[in-house]
Amino acid sequence: MRDVAIVGIGIGKFGSLWEKSFRDLAVEASLDAIKDAGVDHIDSMYVGNFSAGTLIEQEHIAPLVADYLGYRLIPSTRVENACASGSSAFRMGLIEVASGISDVVLVVGAEKMTDIKTSEALYSLSLAADREYEGYQGITFPGLFALVAKRHMFEFGTTRKQLSAVAIKNHKNAYRNPKAQFHQLVNEEDIENSPMIADPLRLYDCSPITDGAAAVILMPLDEAKKLSNLHHPLVKVSGIGQANDTIALAQRDSLVGFAATTEAAKKAYKMSEKKIEDIDVAEIHDCFTIAEICAIEDLGFFPKGKGGEAVEAGLTEIGGKIPINPSGGLKGKGHPVGATGVVQIANIVEQLRGEAGENQVKNAKVGLAQNLGGSGATVVVTILEVV
Amino acid sequence: MRDVAIVGIGIGKFGSLWEKSFRDLAVEASLDAIKDAGVDHIDSMYVGNFSAGTLIEQEHIAPLVADYLGYRLIPSTRVENACASGSSAFRMGLIEVASGISDVVLVVGAEKMTDIKTSEALYSLSLAADREYEGYQGITFPGLFALVAKRHMFEFGTTRKQLSAVAIKNHKNAYRNPKAQFHQLVNEEDIENSPMIADPLRLYDCSPITDGAAAVILMPLDEAKKLSNLHHPLVKVSGIGQANDTIALAQRDSLVGFAATTEAAKKAYKMSEKKIEDIDVAEIHDCFTIAEICAIEDLGFFPKGKGGEAVEAGLTEIGGKIPINPSGGLKGKGHPVGATGVVQIANIVEQLRGEAGENQVKNAKVGLAQNLGGSGATVVVTILEVV
Repeated sequence: MRDVAIVGIGIGKFGSLWEKSFRDLAVEASLDAIKDAGVDHIDSMYVGNFSAGTLIEQEHIAPLVADYLGYRLIPSTRVENACASGSSAFRMGLIEVASGISDVVLVVGAEKMTDIKTSEALYSLSLAADREYEGYQGITFPGLFALVAKRHMFEFGTTRKQLSAVAIKNHKNAYRNPKAQFHQLVNEEDIENSPMIADPLRLYDCSPITDGAAAVILMPLDEAKKLSNLHHPLVKVSGIGQANDTIALAQRDSLVGFAATTEAAKKAYKMSEKKIEDIDVAEIHDCFTIAEICAIEDLGFFPKGKGGEAVEAGLTEIGGKIPINPSGGLKGKGHPVGATGVVQIANIVEQLRGEAGENQVKNAKVGLAQNLGGSGATVVVTILEVV
Repeated sequence: MRDVAIVGIGIGKFGSLWEKSFRDLAVEASLDAIKDAGVDHIDSMYVGNFSAGTLIEQEHIAPLVADYLGYRLIPSTRVENACASGSSAFRMGLIEVASGISDVVLVVGAEKMTDIKTSEALYSLSLAADREYEGYQGITFPGLFALVAKRHMFEFGTTRKQLSAVAIKNHKNAYRNPKAQFHQLVNEEDIENSPMIADPLRLYDCSPITDGAAAVILMPLDEAKKLSNLHHPLVKVSGIGQANDTIALAQRDSLVGFAATTEAAKKAYKMSEKKIEDIDVAEIHDCFTIAEICAIEDLGFFPKGKGGEAVEAGLTEIGGKIPINPSGGLKGKGHPVGATGVVQIANIVEQLRGEAGENQVKNAKVGLAQNLGGSGATVVVTILEVV
């Protein structure tokens, strides 16, 4: 297998983008990535997308995006793994370049969620859970993650204030990220006064509905070194791991963490020959505040049950022990489902290049992205490093 | 890259299977493939599926199938490329094994289409076309392929009788395939008396709505040779090619063929170091009778414009110059969208092993599968051979 570098990134503005179509979003982010890489062609591409069939009444989006991007007669494939669609697509692009089948591969994640009624978007999102045993009973994701939060509080004494600390931090980081959906600082009182969605989760514990896209260009590391326009440190993919778990939350052994995160991380650490102590910055799947607390424990940054305390103590702030979601995360930056896994990786590339602006983590050389689908039935962990 | 073998196949019964759920179909075909291969584990899996979101209100089906198959903590990824979802998923499995990332990979294609109203299934199918420029105008796939048929008739003198010859042959082959949806011989009169769907295409020119699943197990060729339970010739993947084209038919240079088929075949021939003359048997994407005529021309079996004559002359029968769709094809065997690309490959494996029963092509050593998505916006061509 060949070593693979990320030679281009494209990050679109996230938000309620009523003036842009799905095609616009996917094509703009892709063109930005191609321009950033300075490549003159692509050999193959992957489109990470969750539910275009129900959200925009369009399947078969991979050749569609290739078409509107101006590419014909290349392989273009859509990957769907719920909220982990983007990182699953990235994994395919990585394997395709590593295998030697293709040299220049585009991975774009995109989702257009705000062109339909919110109730319809929530219905679409619910299709990532077990429809027969969860969806038909009326439970949606806030309810599922509320069960996780309740159990985490019961077992470890995690507090409402600790959940809020995640939201406060991620809104603060998003405030300084020009691409983020929210540029609104929140404090504990705002959160305590926000509507209860599913006890104990309030509005500000939930990531929003978002339009957006992000893209990366992958190349063999040896070829990447020859690119003429390199104006930044080269970033390589050191490791990746993907794991599944039961589709239904009720069938898990434990509700206080996600086994698929731990397993995916184990694979990624092994492949990259890195240890948890080597990680300088991480983008984490905070679809709900409790998900970030579980993730930083499952990944090994903090012992199980101690994640809430760590966030409250500021250890995950930019400048803290391990900066988590300097981009603002799903909570503050927005969560265009199929784009999320790709933008997390692109955000880590920005950090490793030293291009993260006001949210730059000093001397970041190794970064990690964790992308979670459904209630943890799919998890992908990716480790990147400066060459 | 490592050479890759197909060491196991599982082909479910196709039809209106109201007693089985999507999970049942996908799991049963997968278990059959695992049993056929005699492997004791899988490292990774891919699920080819078109539109579970709209057909059965369930996305995130890759970890779901892994879960119901009894696998946890492995990578499981869904691939969607309309009617070419199955072969696109197969390509991913192939690349994953070839790359060295995984040793034993399951690829399963499945679709559950008959649990909703036919009008709703037709709506789902229409999402594989360009929703903004085709679907919203009211055109569906029979209409799009009718345009192709009309133009083919105009340019080359292809006749209504030649279209019928495709349906008669494929129903005849399906009649002898116990897994096929239709076991009903049709003659020219039946076809001429069947309802007009989109002029010139009548009911018997169209593939049906079908429930079904099929699966294959991939392994490195060198490892496959060590399997203890080999009771048949070993089949390896010699070449694969995938290509996209414009999503909308109106934007093509030509309506009388599919450029993506020609390009995908070119890549597959090159990778396999085979010539068209080496192919002994082919499974072709006959979603409509005209599609088979176009495909056998685009692949190079017959000159452009001569496909209809070739079928009428019996050259594509079992025992003819090049047997096309000995399984019965989509027309006779059925077309469970996401399963189709996988079952085509599994059917070719049966032929190369000499296990195709009454539809066996004598001395078949090299076979080809062509799987087409939408109106040709995605095409995958795969070449297999006996080692």
